[in-house]
Amino acid sequence: MPHEDKTLVLYDTLLRDGTQSEDVNFTVQDKVRIAEELDDFGIDFIEGGWPGSNPRDIEFFNEVKKSKVNPAKICAFGSTRRAKKSCENDESIQALLQSGAANITIFGKTWDLHVTEALKISLENNLELINDTISYLKKKVSNVFYDAEHFFDGYKANPEYALKTLKAAMDAKADCLVLCDTNGGTMPDELVDIIKKVREVTGEYPLGIHCHNDSECAVANSVLAVRNGITHIQGTINGYGERCGNANLCSVIPNLQLKYGYDCVEDENLKKLWSLSRLVNELGNLKHNIHQPYVGRAAFAHKGGVHVSAILKNARTYEHIKPELVGNTQRVLVSDLSGKSNLMYKAKDFGLELDSNDPKMNSLLEKLKELENKGFQYEGAEASFELLVRKAIGNFTKFFDLLSFRVIDEKRSAIEPPFAEATVMLRVGGDIEHTAAIGNGPVNALDNSLRKALEKFYPSLKTMDLVDYKVRILTGKDGTKAITRVLIESKDETDTWGTVGVAHNIIDASYQAMVDSIEYKLFKDTYK
Amino acid sequence: MPHEDKTLVLYDTLLRDGTQSEDVNFTVQDKVRIAEELDDFGIDFIEGGWPGSNPRDIEFFNEVKKSKVNPAKICAFGSTRRAKKSCENDESIQALLQSGAANITIFGKTWDLHVTEALKISLENNLELINDTISYLKKKVSNVFYDAEHFFDGYKANPEYALKTLKAAMDAKADCLVLCDTNGGTMPDELVDIIKKVREVTGEYPLGIHCHNDSECAVANSVLAVRNGITHIQGTINGYGERCGNANLCSVIPNLQLKYGYDCVEDENLKKLWSLSRLVNELGNLKHNIHQPYVGRAAFAHKGGVHVSAILKNARTYEHIKPELVGNTQRVLVSDLSGKSNLMYKAKDFGLELDSNDPKMNSLLEKLKELENKGFQYEGAEASFELLVRKAIGNFTKFFDLLSFRVIDEKRSAIEPPFAEATVMLRVGGDIEHTAAIGNGPVNALDNSLRKALEKFYPSLKTMDLVDYKVRILTGKDGTKAITRVLIESKDETDTWGTVGVAHNIIDASYQAMVDSIEYKLFKDTYK
Repeated sequence: MPHEDKTLVLYDTLLRDGTQSEDVNFTVQDKVRIAEELDDFGIDFIEGGWPGSNPRDIEFFNEVKKSKVNPAKICAFGSTRRAKKSCENDESIQALLQSGAANITIFGKTWDLHVTEALKISLENNLELINDTISYLKKKVSNVFYDAEHFFDGYKANPEYALKTLKAAMDAKADCLVLCDTNGGTMPDELVDIIKKVREVTGEYPLGIHCHNDSECAVANSVLAVRNGITHIQGTINGYGERCGNANLCSVIPNLQLKYGYDCVEDENLKKLWSLSRLVNELGNLKHNIHQPYVGRAAFAHKGGVHVSAILKNARTYEHIKPELVGNTQRVLVSDLSGKSNLMYKAKDFGLELDSNDPKMNSLLEKLKELENKGFQYEGAEASFELLVRKAIGNFTKFFDLLSFRVIDEKRSAIEPPFAEATVMLRVGGDIEHTAAIGNGPVNALDNSLRKALEKFYPSLKTMDLVDYKVRILTGKDGTKAITRVLIESKDETDTWGTVGVAHNIIDASYQAMVDSIEYKLFKDTYK
Repeated sequence: MPHEDKTLVLYDTLLRDGTQSEDVNFTVQDKVRIAEELDDFGIDFIEGGWPGSNPRDIEFFNEVKKSKVNPAKICAFGSTRRAKKSCENDESIQALLQSGAANITIFGKTWDLHVTEALKISLENNLELINDTISYLKKKVSNVFYDAEHFFDGYKANPEYALKTLKAAMDAKADCLVLCDTNGGTMPDELVDIIKKVREVTGEYPLGIHCHNDSECAVANSVLAVRNGITHIQGTINGYGERCGNANLCSVIPNLQLKYGYDCVEDENLKKLWSLSRLVNELGNLKHNIHQPYVGRAAFAHKGGVHVSAILKNARTYEHIKPELVGNTQRVLVSDLSGKSNLMYKAKDFGLELDSNDPKMNSLLEKLKELENKGFQYEGAEASFELLVRKAIGNFTKFFDLLSFRVIDEKRSAIEPPFAEATVMLRVGGDIEHTAAIGNGPVNALDNSLRKALEKFYPSLKTMDLVDYKVRILTGKDGTKAITRVLIESKDETDTWGTVGVAHNIIDASYQAMVDSIEYKLFKDTYK
């Protein structure tokens, strides 16, 4: 029984459950940046961390308050209070409140095995913990969501008790009862059967779903849950999460919105799905999965000859949706027809109206293709992209020229750290500047010497800082030579911007990204 | 209505549909090797290629005859005959017979749009092609399977016609009618509804399923098809296939067998699933997806402290199946807060029995905590972790000592790439080795000079390669000094291992990870 109004609540747990993934680590700055994008995209609730469990999560809640993220969307995660403490005396419960999050998600035990073996308390006692914790928090924050951990396994083991735990949360007026397939082992038909049974007891009470992908059914299970009346969906961008991951919102959202017509996000925002997926990968220094449904580079790529000729006649023949709806593009090994309009669309973003008939547009497109083949990627490096476009259409004047640089890194004994020094020679207008600096490492030394040389001419560079520096090794198709891609994030008092460099040599790649960053700063200060 | 005897027919199309994937390429030898493993594992039918479409596929059918693969399992793939030719005169149909395959799968058009727009023939004519081609081939080979291309989309567009195409194949006595979700866009509830409608027309006739993963529902859809009476399942190992891939048999098979008790393969063979998945990746030179359900390295990996303590008490609490059933193993990840039991568990993994009362254990734990505070992380760097433990308990002898190194990176003009050179001085036993090498960049130059110095003493280093290199900048809490963490993945002919280095200086961090990698290799070769 799909619900009438087709409005759903989207809840992202990338910043909490997602970071449980073996290879996913975000800095606090990354987490805030992602929260901003999730908010902008139209996610309703953003679970930011478990304040009781580690200091980095607490820092996130402090930092996100200073960001532009809508505070009403922020959610903190924690467990029911400890059996031997009251909520007032339980440090973890208090940490949730201290986080200042407008919403709190509390997980509790459903599965009798966990209550007796892990918590080592009575079944009755567990019901009190659930009821008590939710009741207490309900008075303090806007929403308290209840995550029924191991709901499906618990139901299979002891249905009566599992339903009692939900009842305890209902009695405490939790804003939603979220049925969790924590171990990810529930099969789709089983899941639907259990949801129907739950519905008999909970009536119209709002239900949510939280699936894991251990059986590769998380997306289908989430969709089927919604088809059976569930309105609150938890998952993560790109499906990152513990073990095999959480339900992938990059598939769940377009499935629900494009296949059934549910209201998840604005249609215009859905087009940002592709770049949102990339951004998360870039910030996490994670490899993009080219086969990822909807947002993968291969998701609308056509290789087979039969398919290609059919697709050119009618795209519907081999594409289940229009790739543009999620910001992706069709790829056919013939020519890139969608390039121009895409480029114009992006240029508008930074205030440039491009003329599609301008012959420079073709050379820009070619240049772009060439750079992308080399390994350049402009997601998270929009400043480099803007410079590229401005340079190609003659909308940029150089601020300086490099004549040479040299970096030396020397280790004089096994125990001492190495010594890094860089020299740089530049031309600025009619002047030649030749200087040297040391640094924490070769890249830092080069950065220092570059700034030292330039600050004399452009004092505003003093306000600029390198915030983040990411390196990715791309292996060439033939596996012979490794290519290095460097992403730099910089900021000054008002802005943050990303730049990219690609080369075999890491210093060279870093230098390119650094120069772009400086050029962007100078351009911005002069013309914007 | 799940069928009674619970015996299913497994059909793998990795060697045909799988190779349509953008990054999947196998040599003929690889294909034969994979066919042998699929046969051995218990796959019932192995689709080897489309003999009419390319010469490499023809070669496969010749070569596989000389292998130990059961010839009764081999299947060739092709389309219905061309409209203007008879089967006798159609080269593609004749190529199928010439392949000598015992079974043939013929795909035909279901969707009226494709008949009129792609084939440009009448709807009636298409029915003749289907019937005629199957009837002709039925007299020549053991089994003729009928792949109803775009079945679900075709049914949605014109249900009557879609069913007529199945009827045409039934009349021609096809051995199975395989319903294909070619574009991968069908939602699970839709798929079930349509299968039920088909069943009303086809009665007890054997039905098959062929799903694509464009909506991330291929595994769930395949499972649901079986739950609705379908007995023949097509998919690929690891889910490789065009665009977003085919139904992943590495998930479909354990789902059906372990969750519902269907007979797919022998229980003993199911334990080979993990190595089968790896083998396909190795032969295809494809990266292993650590998060892959059932067979991924992270599929049974536990990071969170709460989970770890629960799992050590009772694995069922956070594992949906016993990992051993599919040949995988439980992994407990080392991360902060890891206590003694965690450490002992990990040490057992590499064959070390630690004594919890040994005073060295405390200093090891302290060392570990100190390193983790510095930014060391041993997830994905198990070799560094093993070395750390062995060194702490006195189970390691040094192979060499560093005396000094120097790296120079010099750029002599704006357009030329920089020149990178490293010198290194080492002591190996009583010898001092002082040498130099160049490289693609400073890290590569240092790696080259280090190996150059050591290969003379340890020739086995020649078999070792650096596979992946990751750099992560960690910002200190106060945002003052950046710390660099480098993760290196190395391999030789038999193993793959990860190492880590952390320092302010990227060269220093890389050096640490490199040295660990080399020491691990030498230790392994000497003592393991």
